[in-house]
Amino acid sequence: MELLKEYIIEKGRVIADDVLKVDSFLNHQLDIGLYQAIGQEFQQRFSQDSISKILTIEASGIGIACITAQYFGNLPVVFAKKFSAKNLNPEVYESRVFSFTKGQFYQIRVDKKYLNSRDNILIIDDFLANGNAVLGLLDIVRQAGAKISGVGIVIEKSFQDGREKILKENVRLESLARIKSLEGGKVTFMD
Amino acid sequence: MELLKEYIIEKGRVIADDVLKVDSFLNHQLDIGLYQAIGQEFQQRFSQDSISKILTIEASGIGIACITAQYFGNLPVVFAKKFSAKNLNPEVYESRVFSFTKGQFYQIRVDKKYLNSRDNILIIDDFLANGNAVLGLLDIVRQAGAKISGVGIVIEKSFQDGREKILKENVRLESLARIKSLEGGKVTFMD
Repeated sequence: MELLKEYIIEKGRVIADDVLKVDSFLNHQLDIGLYQAIGQEFQQRFSQDSISKILTIEASGIGIACITAQYFGNLPVVFAKKFSAKNLNPEVYESRVFSFTKGQFYQIRVDKKYLNSRDNILIIDDFLANGNAVLGLLDIVRQAGAKISGVGIVIEKSFQDGREKILKENVRLESLARIKSLEGGKVTFMD
Repeated sequence: MELLKEYIIEKGRVIADDVLKVDSFLNHQLDIGLYQAIGQEFQQRFSQDSISKILTIEASGIGIACITAQYFGNLPVVFAKKFSAKNLNPEVYESRVFSFTKGQFYQIRVDKKYLNSRDNILIIDDFLANGNAVLGLLDIVRQAGAKISGVGIVIEKSFQDGREKILKENVRLESLARIKSLEGGKVTFMD
């Protein structure tokens, strides 16, 4: 997606060989015009599928999922909540996710009322790196017995193994920008 | 706002004399058509002001703020992040907020790059109860030297003291649904 790549080049900041900050437009200050273009692009890429619901995870995925939902006829959005608490709740689907950034596990949860076996789910998130958050969401979708239409990611760090893990699950993955490398402070895209 | 009141009556669940669950449409599963109506209503109520940015707080405020921003000509949205960590960071505005639900303080933060003295801020959030999160956001706006256009709330629990605290700060408050009482499992509105 060319517009997104332009934003990344012009406004992104490479602060380490594996860290790209895009908080001026994607995940702290949010550029709503760009969000709309992202939503339209996801709609085009998944237009053949009869998706019933968009699933994302707090916090940065929520805004992107809400704007995107508008281009799918105002589909409902469900966001998984993050908990550090360990207590089990029988009324929720939950999965354990390891955060590399924080070096610890956390739980993600979705109330059983909001996912069911008739659903066909599109998962949306802002970043794909090691893929653990998306694997947790896929786990939850499968617990619900729902179908997975695919995974839509805004920025994929293709030098990490998230893509590989998702494709191994036989799930379709569409990333709007794929970053090959951040070495030397420079963003290099896959294509 | 009549549509919102209908949603609350039909889909809300009173689970204690002070707890209303609206997670089927507002803050876990999100009804994007309702979000659009909420955004339009906020635009009408704050249409006289030349707002430069919408400020909210993770997680539930983000989707509402993003959809609302579209009716203000795609204004930028900034969301404050929540941290339990106590370490100070000179590059962020931060404020300490007490969570009654969790019985503890947390920090909220906004990067200094995304708020400045030329801004005129509209604060948006899903719920107003004791008002502590909004007071934290107001504190951050003032640290930035920005103007405050007002606070837009989707559901106000008017039997708690959040409204009083915000009005004491001489800030305009617009709540789309004001709940007088949840006693006896029944939702009673202010008007």
